[in-house]
Amino acid sequence: MRAAILAVGSELLGTERLDTNSLRLAEVLERYGVELAAKGVVGDDRGEIAAELGRLLGRFDLVLATGGLGPTADDLTREAAADALGRPLVFHPEIAAWIERRFRDHGVAMPESNRRQAEVIDGAVVVPNPRGTAPGMRIAAGGDGRRDATLFLFPGVPDEMAGMVSSHLEPWLAAATAGRGAREGRVFKVAALPESTVDDRIRGAYAEFGRETITILAHPGEVQLHFWATGGEAERRARLDAVAARLRELVGPAIYTADPAATLEGTVGDLLRGRGESAATAESCTGGLVAERLTRVPGSSDYFLGGAVAYSNRLKESLLGVPGALLAAHGAVSEEVARAMAAGARAAFAADWAIAVTGVAGPGGGSEEKPVGTVHLAVAGPGEDEAAVEHRRVRFPGDRRRVRELSAQLGLEMLRRRLAGLPSTAEEAGSWR
Amino acid sequence: MRAAILAVGSELLGTERLDTNSLRLAEVLERYGVELAAKGVVGDDRGEIAAELGRLLGRFDLVLATGGLGPTADDLTREAAADALGRPLVFHPEIAAWIERRFRDHGVAMPESNRRQAEVIDGAVVVPNPRGTAPGMRIAAGGDGRRDATLFLFPGVPDEMAGMVSSHLEPWLAAATAGRGAREGRVFKVAALPESTVDDRIRGAYAEFGRETITILAHPGEVQLHFWATGGEAERRARLDAVAARLRELVGPAIYTADPAATLEGTVGDLLRGRGESAATAESCTGGLVAERLTRVPGSSDYFLGGAVAYSNRLKESLLGVPGALLAAHGAVSEEVARAMAAGARAAFAADWAIAVTGVAGPGGGSEEKPVGTVHLAVAGPGEDEAAVEHRRVRFPGDRRRVRELSAQLGLEMLRRRLAGLPSTAEEAGSWR
Repeated sequence: MRAAILAVGSELLGTERLDTNSLRLAEVLERYGVELAAKGVVGDDRGEIAAELGRLLGRFDLVLATGGLGPTADDLTREAAADALGRPLVFHPEIAAWIERRFRDHGVAMPESNRRQAEVIDGAVVVPNPRGTAPGMRIAAGGDGRRDATLFLFPGVPDEMAGMVSSHLEPWLAAATAGRGAREGRVFKVAALPESTVDDRIRGAYAEFGRETITILAHPGEVQLHFWATGGEAERRARLDAVAARLRELVGPAIYTADPAATLEGTVGDLLRGRGESAATAESCTGGLVAERLTRVPGSSDYFLGGAVAYSNRLKESLLGVPGALLAAHGAVSEEVARAMAAGARAAFAADWAIAVTGVAGPGGGSEEKPVGTVHLAVAGPGEDEAAVEHRRVRFPGDRRRVRELSAQLGLEMLRRRLAGLPSTAEEAGSWR
Repeated sequence: MRAAILAVGSELLGTERLDTNSLRLAEVLERYGVELAAKGVVGDDRGEIAAELGRLLGRFDLVLATGGLGPTADDLTREAAADALGRPLVFHPEIAAWIERRFRDHGVAMPESNRRQAEVIDGAVVVPNPRGTAPGMRIAAGGDGRRDATLFLFPGVPDEMAGMVSSHLEPWLAAATAGRGAREGRVFKVAALPESTVDDRIRGAYAEFGRETITILAHPGEVQLHFWATGGEAERRARLDAVAARLRELVGPAIYTADPAATLEGTVGDLLRGRGESAATAESCTGGLVAERLTRVPGSSDYFLGGAVAYSNRLKESLLGVPGALLAAHGAVSEEVARAMAAGARAAFAADWAIAVTGVAGPGGGSEEKPVGTVHLAVAGPGEDEAAVEHRRVRFPGDRRRVRELSAQLGLEMLRRRLAGLPSTAEEAGSWR
């Protein structure tokens, strides 16, 4: 089964917005082993929408269209789909009554324009939309010399679409693909290693399992390894386990999770919660990003106490107790100051652990000795001596934003390794230096 | 002139990546008044690419294709475009020599596979790519009973494409659209007002200038008003000035910039720098986001001293000097504590200004009295008395992330208004309450 997605909406042809609904749809198609062969966007133009729907239905087995089901004059997907299929629209009074009731429940009268949303293509199955007023449709195209294909119409509002995808598209896909060996995927997330390093390390797995089995997706400071297997359940599982074992062997402790929904900050949080320990931050060049990452996690107040953004040297002294003499002798971007910031934050905030970051994010402030991208990170943990503070000096590539993102990511990963009792990131061949 | 964009690459049909090159292309087309009528994505499949290029060239005047010009076996756009146009590929030794030299300059021999990149569609104009090895092409399709249309092939690497768009597509568009009245746009950025409020306020401008003249784009806590005029330069300017004046009248001081590249944090920074004053932050529920926003701006160390992320009550006392009695009496999420955090940060960090945020970002922690989304913000500035601290209590809609984003945005906007001597956001009808 081959599928195509069409997003309708002039705003998706502008300079700011992309059709993100297609990512959610691609995920569902992937889960059921349906190949997504093409995606398209057209504006609010009845002729264009009809022409494109007609073409896609002539070429693919499943067409998922989003958007253009609203009540206003520029919502034209209903009419255009009817044109493409050569079928009339039929007014459904029970849908109009449902929409009217929905408005009444909110204490307002239904605007006349919403009556259009009760028009359904002849022969379509109505897909109810509990989160909005625009119902969706499923239509078996074909007959009359037309190729057999299925068309779904969904609203463009992401929440509404997502609800209807779960309630109707997924059951339909499950039935339509039943009996075929399903496709199943897993993911490993790798923190704080460059994409090229991870790619090099897993060459052996490409060779062993086939390049198409494993996909690398890179974000700043994070690489995701997606891998796939098809076939019967037992066969699939065995294959996925084999790939997973090989990847673990090749990539090692840099894999921080196999949970598609997990984040690095959440993983660090779970480790802290599990140990009953607390953390704090001391940031200069990242300007609060490490604290912001840690506090994205709901419930992070259980283990995160707080942090200092010490941008000025004066605040490094007053908030974190970094000796002025150290700052004068080595400069704010130095191993000595990073270590003192981490130890100072741990002491000042009475935390078990502290992450400290000081560096030159750029574009200004670089020198020959400390070029832009130079960052010193330190993690202080339980223990009385200097050795309890781990330090790394790296030079990151990229612009200000990238340097800050990579710094925050490496700081979190350094803490994760300490908490999990894993080897330091400094021992990773191919890590940033 | 009507245009279409086709992005080639199987990775753009997956669950993670979107074709962002099209945003840059849409921007350029918009600048030259060329309507973008459709966008599409196809995978690395020669038949699919050829079919889609053929269709688009039969329907639109200008087709911009990106991706699939690399050296590997799955880079098939060259061959597919040749198929679609019914023309042969011709090997250009001078391009091969150029690619070979590029490799030699980097101290490596050219892999044999890169020779493919020297193949050019018969009759195409080569578009050099100074940032990579894949040259682009411009081809006048038409003749042989084919519709007249122009096809550009660009590499998919964003930097490489952007360079070639500037050096070749823009001059071509300038020539192709010369003589027609150009289209010109401006933007106003509005902080910390809901989209519906801004939309309501500018109804009069829609009525006066036509709905298609003004486009609203909404991001969390920020609304952008894009407006357009066509015609000769004097006519265009007069019209844009008239729309701008009306929008300023309707929206008022919430417009923080007319510079497309400006950000709210940059605007706040410019105001601070202009006054020779400094700022600090005291954050609870935003967890460092306000400091992170302020320090995104290069050179922010000129005016930003630092901040405290005081997640625990203990740190609110020790870092910011919030009296324990106040916390006990009113709770951490309260007007009294927000005011004390702002005043405390100002004093402790010896800053001229301080922004404080404390709230319930959710999903947990809400109560009947203080539901999720309840946020207290305070801005402390020069002056000895209580009145120098401005306070707002709002209840934001949305999830944890949205509440944090809106909180940071409103905090920055409260400071901007104070610095610019503008009325408080609390006096804005339709602002969050």
